[in-house]
Amino acid sequence: MQGPAQTPQTDTAYPRTERTVPTRSAERASYDKEFVHAILDEAYVCHLGFVRDGAPVVLPTLYARVGERLYVHGSTGSRPLRAAGQADPGLPVCLTVTHVDGLVLARSAFHHSINYRSVVVHGVAYDVTDPQEKREALDALVDHVVAGRSADSRPANKKELAATAVIRLDLHEVSAKLRTGGVNDEPEDLALPHWAGVVPVRPTYGAPLPDPDLAPGTALPGYLRTL
Amino acid sequence: MQGPAQTPQTDTAYPRTERTVPTRSAERASYDKEFVHAILDEAYVCHLGFVRDGAPVVLPTLYARVGERLYVHGSTGSRPLRAAGQADPGLPVCLTVTHVDGLVLARSAFHHSINYRSVVVHGVAYDVTDPQEKREALDALVDHVVAGRSADSRPANKKELAATAVIRLDLHEVSAKLRTGGVNDEPEDLALPHWAGVVPVRPTYGAPLPDPDLAPGTALPGYLRTL
Repeated sequence: MQGPAQTPQTDTAYPRTERTVPTRSAERASYDKEFVHAILDEAYVCHLGFVRDGAPVVLPTLYARVGERLYVHGSTGSRPLRAAGQADPGLPVCLTVTHVDGLVLARSAFHHSINYRSVVVHGVAYDVTDPQEKREALDALVDHVVAGRSADSRPANKKELAATAVIRLDLHEVSAKLRTGGVNDEPEDLALPHWAGVVPVRPTYGAPLPDPDLAPGTALPGYLRTL
Repeated sequence: MQGPAQTPQTDTAYPRTERTVPTRSAERASYDKEFVHAILDEAYVCHLGFVRDGAPVVLPTLYARVGERLYVHGSTGSRPLRAAGQADPGLPVCLTVTHVDGLVLARSAFHHSINYRSVVVHGVAYDVTDPQEKREALDALVDHVVAGRSADSRPANKKELAATAVIRLDLHEVSAKLRTGGVNDEPEDLALPHWAGVVPVRPTYGAPLPDPDLAPGTALPGYLRTL
């Protein structure tokens, strides 16, 4: 079976490649950069896959996007970050981000589904060695969790920087996939007495719990009030 | 470096193996079966990793737990399910489930963190060919999303069953990892004027949106009212 031809990367879309075009439900796939960026920017935890001793490993970790680059950080002692630093030329990874938007309850068990938006990035992760790029990546990682937070915290000192590894993954081979909308039951099932519809799902934030040792007079910052 | 000895599986804990004992923050790891089951049962979307042409692939997908087995389903045409059916003896996978419980905002950028609970399962996925096991797995997949739902929907017919592949992954090599609690700032940072604390995060369900073609008189079932 011939895969789709690799099309050149444009200003607005990622190229379709053999591994970013799904074998099924291809109509649910998107390569639009703005759409991909929006999904990536709405989350801060990804699932990072790599191969270790021939077997797959998938770990949850924080990430941040800066333009067409993703950054992941961790202890210099952690396995994937060590591997990215040692591997030449870099560590092959797959980085996946998923938002669950709704439970789709059909009359038939078969047509039950999930409304979701996901992004899958294939590529090679490289150890970030440039000090300036590393600092900017670490700021982005903090700001990805709470926008505006990096300017309102003590920056990493030399010892902390040395203990932290950052890897970079460029957005080249990227696809988004989504399901939206309602129930797709078979016409002959519509009269069945089972409730059908969509239950929306979204993450919500509770009231911030201040640290008991907060310096006197420290107010809740505005960027947390609007979360 | 010598890995930890493989200890026999007990009634209450999974054995520690070289790849389930983390290289760092080992105090955050748990092998307790009840704890692992609770994390698995609270979610329904996992990230499934496998190796394709030597490179890692990570895809979000529904899963369900039945005792010490996990099940994942999909189209018989989807890549990992096809691979599990063709591979002998099965498809090596890593299945990861993550709950984000809170954003940990420290005074120092370095000590920012996430409160989370995750489970990582290493193993080999096998195609489920027994019709009875396949039916039970499909019921479990529906009930994992909404408890009680499989009994209140039309079961899959022959054609639908034939179009659906189910793979099984036994819970043998399993670990949970978690971070809980508050901020861990350096003592010398406590007087800094930055707000510090934890912002709780949890998924919430919106009001169910009924399908416009609902059969007249179909009420919202009790299992959805208590979501």
